Amino acid sequence: MKKHLHALFLFICLAPFWTQAQEINSPNKNLVLKFELTANGVPSYQLTYKGKPVIKPSTLGLEIKEAPSFMDGFTVVNATQKSADESWDPVMGEEKTIRNNYNELAVTLAQAKNNNRYIRIRFRLFNDGLGFRYEFPKQNNLNYFVIKEERTEFQLAGDHKIFWIPGDYDTNEYAYTTSKISEIPSLMKKATALINAQQPIKELSVQTPSMMKSDDGLYINIHEAGLINYPAMYLEVDAVNNKMHSHLAPDAMGNKGYMQTDAQSPWRTIVVSDKATEILASRLILNLNEPTSYKDVSWIKPTKYIGIWWEYFVAGKSTWAFGKENNVKLTDDFTKLTPNGKHGATTEHAKEYIDFAAANGFDAILIEGWNIGWEDWIGNWKEEVFDFVTAYPDFDVKAVHEYAAAKGVKIIMHHETSGAATNYERRLDRAFEFMNANGYDAVKTGYVGQIIPRGEHHDGQWMVNHYLHVAERAADYKIMIDSHEAVRPTGLNRTYPNWVAQESARGTEFEAMGGLNPEHTTILPFTRLMGGPMDFTPGIFQTDLTYYKTGGNQRVNTTLVKQLAYYVTMYSPLQMAADIPDNYSRFPDAFQFIKDVAVDWDNSYILEAEPGDYITIARKAKGKNEWFIGGITDENARTAAITFDYLPAGKKYTATVYADAKDASWNQKPQNYTVTKVIVTSKSALKQYIAPGGGVAISIKEASDADLKGLKKL
Amino acid sequence: MKKHLHALFLFICLAPFWTQAQEINSPNKNLVLKFELTANGVPSYQLTYKGKPVIKPSTLGLEIKEAPSFMDGFTVVNATQKSADESWDPVMGEEKTIRNNYNELAVTLAQAKNNNRYIRIRFRLFNDGLGFRYEFPKQNNLNYFVIKEERTEFQLAGDHKIFWIPGDYDTNEYAYTTSKISEIPSLMKKATALINAQQPIKELSVQTPSMMKSDDGLYINIHEAGLINYPAMYLEVDAVNNKMHSHLAPDAMGNKGYMQTDAQSPWRTIVVSDKATEILASRLILNLNEPTSYKDVSWIKPTKYIGIWWEYFVAGKSTWAFGKENNVKLTDDFTKLTPNGKHGATTEHAKEYIDFAAANGFDAILIEGWNIGWEDWIGNWKEEVFDFVTAYPDFDVKAVHEYAAAKGVKIIMHHETSGAATNYERRLDRAFEFMNANGYDAVKTGYVGQIIPRGEHHDGQWMVNHYLHVAERAADYKIMIDSHEAVRPTGLNRTYPNWVAQESARGTEFEAMGGLNPEHTTILPFTRLMGGPMDFTPGIFQTDLTYYKTGGNQRVNTTLVKQLAYYVTMYSPLQMAADIPDNYSRFPDAFQFIKDVAVDWDNSYILEAEPGDYITIARKAKGKNEWFIGGITDENARTAAITFDYLPAGKKYTATVYADAKDASWNQKPQNYTVTKVIVTSKSALKQYIAPGGGVAISIKEASDADLKGLKKL
Repeated sequence: MKKHLHALFLFICLAPFWTQAQEINSPNKNLVLKFELTANGVPSYQLTYKGKPVIKPSTLGLEIKEAPSFMDGFTVVNATQKSADESWDPVMGEEKTIRNNYNELAVTLAQAKNNNRYIRIRFRLFNDGLGFRYEFPKQNNLNYFVIKEERTEFQLAGDHKIFWIPGDYDTNEYAYTTSKISEIPSLMKKATALINAQQPIKELSVQTPSMMKSDDGLYINIHEAGLINYPAMYLEVDAVNNKMHSHLAPDAMGNKGYMQTDAQSPWRTIVVSDKATEILASRLILNLNEPTSYKDVSWIKPTKYIGIWWEYFVAGKSTWAFGKENNVKLTDDFTKLTPNGKHGATTEHAKEYIDFAAANGFDAILIEGWNIGWEDWIGNWKEEVFDFVTAYPDFDVKAVHEYAAAKGVKIIMHHETSGAATNYERRLDRAFEFMNANGYDAVKTGYVGQIIPRGEHHDGQWMVNHYLHVAERAADYKIMIDSHEAVRPTGLNRTYPNWVAQESARGTEFEAMGGLNPEHTTILPFTRLMGGPMDFTPGIFQTDLTYYKTGGNQRVNTTLVKQLAYYVTMYSPLQMAADIPDNYSRFPDAFQFIKDVAVDWDNSYILEAEPGDYITIARKAKGKNEWFIGGITDENARTAAITFDYLPAGKKYTATVYADAKDASWNQKPQNYTVTKVIVTSKSALKQYIAPGGGVAISIKEASDADLKGLKKL
Repeated sequence: MKKHLHALFLFICLAPFWTQAQEINSPNKNLVLKFELTANGVPSYQLTYKGKPVIKPSTLGLEIKEAPSFMDGFTVVNATQKSADESWDPVMGEEKTIRNNYNELAVTLAQAKNNNRYIRIRFRLFNDGLGFRYEFPKQNNLNYFVIKEERTEFQLAGDHKIFWIPGDYDTNEYAYTTSKISEIPSLMKKATALINAQQPIKELSVQTPSMMKSDDGLYINIHEAGLINYPAMYLEVDAVNNKMHSHLAPDAMGNKGYMQTDAQSPWRTIVVSDKATEILASRLILNLNEPTSYKDVSWIKPTKYIGIWWEYFVAGKSTWAFGKENNVKLTDDFTKLTPNGKHGATTEHAKEYIDFAAANGFDAILIEGWNIGWEDWIGNWKEEVFDFVTAYPDFDVKAVHEYAAAKGVKIIMHHETSGAATNYERRLDRAFEFMNANGYDAVKTGYVGQIIPRGEHHDGQWMVNHYLHVAERAADYKIMIDSHEAVRPTGLNRTYPNWVAQESARGTEFEAMGGLNPEHTTILPFTRLMGGPMDFTPGIFQTDLTYYKTGGNQRVNTTLVKQLAYYVTMYSPLQMAADIPDNYSRFPDAFQFIKDVAVDWDNSYILEAEPGDYITIARKAKGKNEWFIGGITDENARTAAITFDYLPAGKKYTATVYADAKDASWNQKPQNYTVTKVIVTSKSALKQYIAPGGGVAISIKEASDADLKGLKKL
């Protein structure tokens, strides 16, 4: 991560007698942030965009346990302004270079009534939104304190449309509901579907990133950046007054955060624009995270992978578990179990996947169910479910590693913790040493189930620290992390670039458990992916799951082409081709797109977007003159308007267009598609039909004259 | 640990139609255990000793969370009896060989109303008492369950005298109260003195080991053996009816135990005799623990040590902390702290201790305060207080190690966790690797403060598992553990012989924090030490602490000689000479006893004992013809009656008698003592005066005729 030299810092010290109100503009002046103290010394802020209110006057503060609160009685003792305009290069990302341009206001607030104890509130106003945080500097009268609750208000300007999932301390895997803010109370019960280990918040709350749209066309996204040593924030909803306020995940004692000065809250972020595309193009959350301190990042690499995984959900022919038993202990002799005859992670089966990966240019294969403990891994709040180093009797770690290495394929380790973070931590060094010894350089971690330490939550401060501990310790071993069921991301992949991707939302697995709504993936980039890359695991070609004759009437609610488009619309530097290899062999022309598509980018262009409806994105492959376009729609057919003006002018390229057939839709003939090769230039334009629940995918390559011969120009 | 071949097992199967009542005798017939089911199928047991009731009919059972209880509706479906008479050799101990002789009754109890779910209650009746436990065999209808509470009753036969400390989930460091059972309610408040991190149980409760004496002279001790994967047990007291019942330490959720079949409770133990000496001679608790599975125990060694420790409590010239600051983080640069000028664990000071240890034949020195983090280590419920591997700037780990190694002295590592067990576990491998790399083979662990995981307790199931995890992982690194502030021991040093000693009671440190009652150490062997060796840290010669001119009017409430006697009366294979070396140099003749005394034994002989009043013990050094005798009294002077019939007949030995001077007492002239050499034989007898709060110590060695010349015969 290289910091560019043209960074510009400007410090402006205000007059020594601080006025109690301060105002800053965004660099382009569209946004105005005003800070002031109300009559009782209560901090308050408001935000406008092009003169329209985004956040009306809203108070700021925190309640402290067994100590005076940081809520009122403040005076401004100092206020400084600063501007920055710099750029930096992420290790992997949607852009090669990211511009970080903001005006900053830092207000120091003291409480005379509490020995002049003071805090600082720092605002950074970008062209694409606002970030602010609480800071607790080291001072004589403030060393340790416990947060009872953070009281950050977001007074919205109207009864906005909102794309939301229920606030829950332990899961983000809900389906989205689209409604007015005022409708949330009546819809909450239905929205709170049964999910493993869920802990819905008693108070009416929604998760962040929370995506809203005002009646007058403002797009507003509230989330947080840099969630470190602090619990995750939810938004408690006052549905009558269109007001939201922060609600933090508690620990086992009901406490919210254990703080030691110097300390700070994460940044509270409000991304705002009158264009939906600019929400997706925002890098505000990444910019608010700290640069990485890793000296060597050469071992962090984009990865396209397949895995022994989807067949556990759909094929019915294989299982994570080896034995028939439903009560096992790590101390058992697993060679004595009764084989269930369906174990997926066998040496032979792994070799088949390795062969397929090698033949089709995949970097790696994920193997789940390789290690002992799966017979009764779920639902018992059991601590020592897995040891992370002992293979089942029919899986030869060394043989698989050597076979894969000989074919140039990496194996992705799987560390399901069953929620027992304590067990994982105490075995972590052994697990990573085992990975180093056996050639694994990436691991998919999992946190299915109730957390141990019991009483802690997936989103609480302790677990937030746990995920970071795992990421940091992994870096010591040069290991990349892809976490599932962890707290949703907040841009920490800037600081911890080996934490390459996360799940933390309702992903493809739910297509095999009732199905995703066709609109789901038009919302995710506006919500979950605002925080960081998602290991969504796209690429399902066999969408009609009755194909497997394992009962049920389930289907993946997309066309085949929409699955291709996901490789572009759902950003991740770690992308899976999740379907079973046989299914790819049946559609070799469509599969070509997955083989070709990049997973790390020089540039991204949000061509069209409307949350809940559609998204079209073009991206340039990192370090290559190749572009890939993905467009998706919800349950409605539409015509995507695709432009190519990001292509170098004056050159001709071949574009391969993967399109839904006219008769295709998510629930009728989803596997009907066309593949067409055409010539494109920077001046081309394409009106492309997309089927209901469908998509479009385009790959663009440099072409020789011979390549272009016989092709039509677009 | 060698199992002798003359073990005898006898299986007796009862008639196929099980009677609902069963009875067994102890091998010597003194004890009779009767089991029966009451009218509602409630299990009940009773115990008599020489015809006197010890436990009157008392019910057994457990309440289960969100499932039917194991309380009633039982029928006996099987009952088996077994006898054993074997012997085994502990790695270290009070005896070279321990006899394990019992009659066993195992009753299988099924609940027809709950799908014939069944449990087993196993009773083992020894000549010195009863052990019984609940067993939960693997079965179709019972895999996982959560214990709400164990309901084991102990209906005592009268309003006994009891030596007790308050039931507390987090500490055993209270002073003992001696009272009638009926007096506990009125004394509880006073008994519950303020102690760091304490969590007194709301219900009227006392800790185990609980020592009682009936009006008709029966000594009864209730504790537990083999506390593994289960919370510690307290005794809730019904002071009106002389009844006690089990109360388990809860977790953060209020749950008591997470169980997976095959499982069992620890053994509930009732040691009983009409002689107090036989209580101290009982090995019942060790016998109920499992043999060790360690294949190599050669690295587990008895250790006599000194340490940079007592000076932190009394001398006022040194501190654990290096810096003056009161707010530090592990990420700080500790070389930038402001030195407080009093740091104890400096390279130079360590070398002084090493010199003293080498000159006086000590095996090791403990160094506390060597590692960063002590500036604000206590009271903040902070997780990352210590990293266990980073030394303060003025402590050179390598230099100290090399200096010590050259002089044949070991360094004992110190891992204070500040109660943050999670932090310790995640750093454990690194900490142990650091120890291996730097020549440390033993560590004193500490758990001062509230536990993290927050909401867990020192005595709960999670922490019980933590201590064992540390012991087992330490064994992988061939490291010995001496735990402080852990749950009190239950004989697990048989199974985990590298867990060589524990504190887990009010030890010598309290002599510098208000003083111990003179009777305290006449009670500890009947209570805390029933479970296992105690690192009491005796050997304080400078008992008047005003000597240090650091303010206060404190004193160690013993004579100097009583401190010598502790090396015999307070069994531990790890014994400290806790005073500052200078003080030993001032009393070289008395110090000779500490230099001579063994810490591992072939045989122990309890010569006299009365809890709360006095104890006199003789022990034969392991593998040597040397004997050591220690006798102590409470605040009253007495004359000890010391016999020598355990010496080989017909041989003469030299005995060096360290005795209180006539004018000595714990609070007047405690340093007045005499050292006398005499001849003893197996027929000798000694009436030895012991001063108030005083003691006597005797070392006996084989002697040549020249040695005996001029000595008087006793």
